[in-house]
Amino acid sequence: MDKIRPIYLSEKNGDLWLTEDERENLKIDYRIKDIIYAEQSAFQYVMILDSYAFGRMLALDGIVQTTSIDGHIYNEMISHVPLCIHPHPRQILIIGGGDCGAAKEICKYDHVERIDLVEIDKLVVEACQNHLPEVSGRLSDPRVHFIFEDGVDFVKNKAQEYDVIIVDSSDPIGPAEVLFEKSFYQSLFKALKDDGLMVCQSQSPIFHAEIMRQTHQRISSIFAKAALYMAVVPTYPGGFWSFTVGSKQHITPDPARLRGQDLLYVNKPLIKSCFDLPQFVLNLL
Amino acid sequence: MDKIRPIYLSEKNGDLWLTEDERENLKIDYRIKDIIYAEQSAFQYVMILDSYAFGRMLALDGIVQTTSIDGHIYNEMISHVPLCIHPHPRQILIIGGGDCGAAKEICKYDHVERIDLVEIDKLVVEACQNHLPEVSGRLSDPRVHFIFEDGVDFVKNKAQEYDVIIVDSSDPIGPAEVLFEKSFYQSLFKALKDDGLMVCQSQSPIFHAEIMRQTHQRISSIFAKAALYMAVVPTYPGGFWSFTVGSKQHITPDPARLRGQDLLYVNKPLIKSCFDLPQFVLNLL
Repeated sequence: MDKIRPIYLSEKNGDLWLTEDERENLKIDYRIKDIIYAEQSAFQYVMILDSYAFGRMLALDGIVQTTSIDGHIYNEMISHVPLCIHPHPRQILIIGGGDCGAAKEICKYDHVERIDLVEIDKLVVEACQNHLPEVSGRLSDPRVHFIFEDGVDFVKNKAQEYDVIIVDSSDPIGPAEVLFEKSFYQSLFKALKDDGLMVCQSQSPIFHAEIMRQTHQRISSIFAKAALYMAVVPTYPGGFWSFTVGSKQHITPDPARLRGQDLLYVNKPLIKSCFDLPQFVLNLL
Repeated sequence: MDKIRPIYLSEKNGDLWLTEDERENLKIDYRIKDIIYAEQSAFQYVMILDSYAFGRMLALDGIVQTTSIDGHIYNEMISHVPLCIHPHPRQILIIGGGDCGAAKEICKYDHVERIDLVEIDKLVVEACQNHLPEVSGRLSDPRVHFIFEDGVDFVKNKAQEYDVIIVDSSDPIGPAEVLFEKSFYQSLFKALKDDGLMVCQSQSPIFHAEIMRQTHQRISSIFAKAALYMAVVPTYPGGFWSFTVGSKQHITPDPARLRGQDLLYVNKPLIKSCFDLPQFVLNLL
């Protein structure tokens, strides 16, 4: 582990702080208790930090990705909603999702047979498995197959293989940028079976309204049905976060399909009502 | 107007910043374009600031209360939800709400006959009416009666007078602390007619979970029915915000009662689904 203090952290009055800049006009500072892990991978600077406000956090290139306190919200919402839409999800592909949280949620469904988790950066998986158990659950289900390669290349060679594809990416800057391109969604379409569906995180309706709108528009142009749903992730800028579903057949969530005894955010009413969007979001689409 | 820079603002690299501390472990910094208004009232330091990320903002003692960009979310949600629950709301009391945004929303209901707006700090109303039109709408509806006095004292002398009471307070620190006490909710109960209902903002389920739980518990102990609903206000810490309704009869929102052509957050589906709470919030209550 790097013994020199990472450039993303600064010291003020004897305390360590991680500062996130949002569009240069808004900054969020997290007081840091301890640097648990810090390593430069081939792709990005990977840190696990222990913070006072949110417990342990994964930060990539200094940007908070998930935390012990609210990581479950994002991971429950990107997993259980599509699993409650598809009538018999058996073959699952996760692109990204190196924190293992989405895969952990999907393992709660007994009828799922295989989960391919394609993460470009092995170091993210190792860091979260070893140092962020609140999110990763130290995932060891034999149905999960870790594949450390580029998700775009991986999915290009697949056809009619998956029931559900989950794109659990970081922001569309750096390595994740290609995961927001139309050609990538076309590859996903091809990789899905005839009744398959995909879901991706589609950023904040406040701070990244244009990316959200564009993602919904691109997915709408390829899939028979597209719909947006929302959740509140307190550590993401503005709190509000959007997800976009693209389906070859329908988008009708059935709350009776929900599995998991220990869910902290999603429940049966929310499986449906997360699709009730605020008016300004509807106006954007 | 004060020509000296308010203590709540600091200069870094030639830029002006407002810093909000949340429990000492999380800080949010807003880059400030201009100080529009800054004055010490008898109760608090009132500022209207022009920020890069959220446009004009009202800050009291350095804490952001409402902004041009998302002030409508809070104001729509604290107003339209109770107005869609009560079958014939005519006499309305707002305690606090000096930014005039809640009163502006209630004026969209033609059958409302009178709105008493009891704000302790006249300077807040003047500042928002003159310098924050995106929130206040320079409210001038003759049904709105401004009463500049202590809301607790005002409501003590009322009995069976109001259909709906809205408690639009700041955080339970300083002048607003009494608006979270059980004796205050008892006064509200007395001031309401036999089919009346009240709503208050009940803080963040993430950062102020105990206040939220206690508020719900106190209101439950006085009113026949109590329920919590939520909205996402990006400028509030964590984004997620809760409201608690207490009703002498029922809490059944009817979306058909919704009024307003220009709503930006609330719409007919949300009037009902804002009561579908995440599991961790249900677990807290």
